Amino acid sequence: MNTQTAWIDEVNWSADGLVPAIAQDATSGRVLMMAWMNRHALQATVDEGQAVYWSRSRQQLWRKGESSGHRQVLRELRLDCDADTILLSVEQIGGIACHTGRGRCFYRRYTEGAWVVTDTMIRSPADIYAETGASSGALNE
Amino acid sequence: MNTQTAWIDEVNWSADGLVPAIAQDATSGRVLMMAWMNRHALQATVDEGQAVYWSRSRQQLWRKGESSGHRQVLRELRLDCDADTILLSVEQIGGIACHTGRGRCFYRRYTEGAWVVTDTMIRSPADIYAETGASSGALNE
Repeated sequence: MNTQTAWIDEVNWSADGLVPAIAQDATSGRVLMMAWMNRHALQATVDEGQAVYWSRSRQQLWRKGESSGHRQVLRELRLDCDADTILLSVEQIGGIACHTGRGRCFYRRYTEGAWVVTDTMIRSPADIYAETGASSGALNE
Repeated sequence: MNTQTAWIDEVNWSADGLVPAIAQDATSGRVLMMAWMNRHALQATVDEGQAVYWSRSRQQLWRKGESSGHRQVLRELRLDCDADTILLSVEQIGGIACHTGRGRCFYRRYTEGAWVVTDTMIRSPADIYAETGASSGALNE
């Protein structure tokens, strides 16, 4: 076993080589989003000190914020008991984690039989992605 | 469409009928664990006011704490932007979410190429599960 990647081998990768990765705001404690990582994404996250996910829709590494500028600077990385889920504590650049322009992706709350939007848009997606010409949809995992 | 289950139909269930569900401690803000839910688990969570997951290993509904007593009382339920991840804010009974007897499942932190245990055992699994005769392994999703 390569001792340099032993910690990656310890992760209990699924049959398709992925694990869920949860990003939590290091300051507010808010859970920002959930995405997926493969081995390369996890290695890149550590190497670069920022959240790098695996985009299942685009089938490529996804450096969070590469289009929006809303990068996630890594503060802490954790693994759960059965080694199949990653938890990242991050500094969310721009205070916006969601492609809809909200602070977090979990902006809907269950209330009496409905999902009610509780979080307002901080900046419009059109505004966020205007500089790159990318569509927000393409950036949504 | 049955309006009573419209909110469940809004969830973007995977091909195998599941979504990841993240449990966060309502008081400390700590992310406790990640498990899976199907439609029935989500409905039961709301109906019973406690976290009910789907155990993939046992292929049955899993009322968190049914063996250990460490139930998770539901405080808030959230859905993410693409409707494929659930976030629960819970009151963790007994302060122990992990079957290893620790407060949370994310008790290992990445440090210089290794996953280092940072959280101590609050109560031994043998002690926790002694009353029911269940093995802790069987309760580990």
